[in-house]
Amino acid sequence: MAQKPSIPKGTRDFTPAEMARRNYIFDTIRDVFHLFGFHQIETPAMENLSTLMGKYGEEGDKLLFKILNSGDFLRGVDPGLIETHDCPKIAAQTCEKGLRYDLTVPFARFVVMHRNELQFPFKRFQIQPVWRADRPQKGRYREFYQCDADVVGSDSLINEIELLQLVDEVFRRLGIRITIKLNNRKVLAGIADLVGAPDKIVDITVAIDKIDKIGLEKVQEELVERGLSPEAVKLITPVITLSGSNSERLEQLSSLLASSETGLKGIEELREVMAGTESLGLNADLELDVSLARGLNYYTGTIIEVKARDVEIGSITGGGRYDNLTGVFGLPGVSGVGISFGADRIYDVLNTLELYPSCITESVKVMFVNFGIAEAARSLAVIRELRSAGIAAEIYPDCAKMKKQMGRADALGIPFVAIIGESELADGTVTLKDMATGEQDRLSIPDIIRKLRGC
Amino acid sequence: MAQKPSIPKGTRDFTPAEMARRNYIFDTIRDVFHLFGFHQIETPAMENLSTLMGKYGEEGDKLLFKILNSGDFLRGVDPGLIETHDCPKIAAQTCEKGLRYDLTVPFARFVVMHRNELQFPFKRFQIQPVWRADRPQKGRYREFYQCDADVVGSDSLINEIELLQLVDEVFRRLGIRITIKLNNRKVLAGIADLVGAPDKIVDITVAIDKIDKIGLEKVQEELVERGLSPEAVKLITPVITLSGSNSERLEQLSSLLASSETGLKGIEELREVMAGTESLGLNADLELDVSLARGLNYYTGTIIEVKARDVEIGSITGGGRYDNLTGVFGLPGVSGVGISFGADRIYDVLNTLELYPSCITESVKVMFVNFGIAEAARSLAVIRELRSAGIAAEIYPDCAKMKKQMGRADALGIPFVAIIGESELADGTVTLKDMATGEQDRLSIPDIIRKLRGC
Repeated sequence: MAQKPSIPKGTRDFTPAEMARRNYIFDTIRDVFHLFGFHQIETPAMENLSTLMGKYGEEGDKLLFKILNSGDFLRGVDPGLIETHDCPKIAAQTCEKGLRYDLTVPFARFVVMHRNELQFPFKRFQIQPVWRADRPQKGRYREFYQCDADVVGSDSLINEIELLQLVDEVFRRLGIRITIKLNNRKVLAGIADLVGAPDKIVDITVAIDKIDKIGLEKVQEELVERGLSPEAVKLITPVITLSGSNSERLEQLSSLLASSETGLKGIEELREVMAGTESLGLNADLELDVSLARGLNYYTGTIIEVKARDVEIGSITGGGRYDNLTGVFGLPGVSGVGISFGADRIYDVLNTLELYPSCITESVKVMFVNFGIAEAARSLAVIRELRSAGIAAEIYPDCAKMKKQMGRADALGIPFVAIIGESELADGTVTLKDMATGEQDRLSIPDIIRKLRGC
Repeated sequence: MAQKPSIPKGTRDFTPAEMARRNYIFDTIRDVFHLFGFHQIETPAMENLSTLMGKYGEEGDKLLFKILNSGDFLRGVDPGLIETHDCPKIAAQTCEKGLRYDLTVPFARFVVMHRNELQFPFKRFQIQPVWRADRPQKGRYREFYQCDADVVGSDSLINEIELLQLVDEVFRRLGIRITIKLNNRKVLAGIADLVGAPDKIVDITVAIDKIDKIGLEKVQEELVERGLSPEAVKLITPVITLSGSNSERLEQLSSLLASSETGLKGIEELREVMAGTESLGLNADLELDVSLARGLNYYTGTIIEVKARDVEIGSITGGGRYDNLTGVFGLPGVSGVGISFGADRIYDVLNTLELYPSCITESVKVMFVNFGIAEAARSLAVIRELRSAGIAAEIYPDCAKMKKQMGRADALGIPFVAIIGESELADGTVTLKDMATGEQDRLSIPDIIRKLRGC
């Protein structure tokens, strides 16, 4: 019986038209990565579960795709364990490997394993798919690409300035207008210091992170719910309602957090990064946003988030500075800063705004019509010459009806059709039809090469 | 406790130097695919096991990596089943998905699911990793890339001629001298017809496929062992010991297989493909080899295999024509012909022969030395100008010792180092050091751009 095929939910096929668009995004990002001196690495899709488990929180562990051991996977499994129906424990004994969940943990492992071959500061980029057993929904997939660039082994804020320039250049090339939001984990720590509750830093940041969505009043309520006194909320309020230019906000912040050494350090870092970036010039808007908290437990310094200005969609790029990337794998003291481009959201933004250049379809320049054995043989010889000149060309492989052959050229958006019939066979010319204008010219091979090369 | 990290056996990390070499191979193949009018697709790493199982034989099923269902994977599993310790059956109930084993089955599924969006003949290429739970050994990995191009929906032998041209062009660009071996499944059927044992086609081809390795005498012994009469072996012997040029061999074969209609059809197809290919001109050696049997159960017409002439290694590319690619998924009558490049073996051949061009390292053109805050700020501004001109550049992010900074440029093979010290800061110049010659020049920005663009 024939099966009706399907693919796992949350995964996607990419057709040639989609691939052309995706390649345009990836190629743009890759070109800029190279321009800035980042070097590509790749890691295996499968990692040992010991590498992955415990790195993404309890929820993350559940979202790992686990690979059943080959062969007799029940060997050595305690029979009593199976009766307990304790799935996580059984999985731990029957699965050694899992699919990578992000590119950061594999990168950390890579740095540790290859540390003697690498030049530090090590500037790597990586563009590969990751897998998460999330509930699929609009814009959220179980397989998706991440595009990460990181510099490890350097504390210099020049790295932040470079990454912001890099982000700016990627989106300038893609034609997407963006706002880059900046914050610093130390400023968030400073806010917690301000109210004398350094242990409340997570509660405070989770609450103030919502200010754009739920407004000031609700944030204040939530802060109280999370155990802050009304006095503390009053102290925090001016910090999260800064106004004016970035330098005005930094001024206000300096006096508000004057009592916190950590906070002032964060402000100083922000000032240096922003000044350095602005002095070089930026297409993007750059905005200090002290409510920005993404990945708080991970970042230790600069926090970066990018929003598209013309499409309502979440963050399309994000990153920040972290300490101790590789400590968990036995190599302490490796700090770094990185940025991750959200390829799928960028794809959605480009589709919404129709920002793709017209030249990205990957069709050939010319298709030769097939009129039979002798004509096809001659066509193949001409095609060989065109290809030698770098011109992508093909022949319709079957001697099908003219209408069907032309239909293919039309459907694939092939700009020219070449015809070698009896008379062209006789005098060595080719009739070239411009599919857009319908114009036909009978040309020599060198003339065809000249014409198709120029377009 | 810090873990000592490792990766699953049979998988690999790729460092920047390795990536540069691999990208060179993939880019070369991709460029040629485009030149010949093939369009890229991608399919998910995970397929439903119902799509994969039973497509690669019993042995293949065992080599599939299966992904444990998320959440309560024991729900609905017959408790009695677990006690049976019947691993394949338990896996069938606890795993819905597996990692793709090759690109052909996912491609067949893709064609069926997207048939209404595709233009037939559909020329697709696909470059993605596949996974097999094979025992890892030298040159055999559990994760490796396949690079496939196929034309489906056309019976024309022009497709074979085009694919042979494509293979020739890929290896011409890579600088690898190759022999392309050709056979046709119908010729193998003709040999079985010749001895009146069409049911013995597999036995016969398995035996004669070994002639290069074990010699004629042993092949004859094996044929007898596999149930052929001494008379049948005598009949077969001249077929498998053809000599002379390809057309001489085809002549001999025609008279030897004169009684087999199928055999003669195969010879006719071989003649057409070889003549068409040779008339266009080929860098490769093209060789008729009736002992070539690869993937017999799969191919139905032309069989193609490529060997490197200067390195002892197995086949580095292979392919052929198949009928009914998609029948198992409910779409009968889709025939096609395809070719698959073995990226890992090609990589080994290029390494052995040291055929990489010198320009493939992906380092920046110039690294700016970091002498401190003011110098770095000026360097960043100059770097921005260089990048705008398309020149990859970077700054050493920390104000480290000169020796350390120069060491980085050296280790990464960066050809130029730029120095902005006090005096360059004063007059707006940059001192550029050629790392190969040691020469230093003090230049204006436009001069630097001119110089670095030209190299």
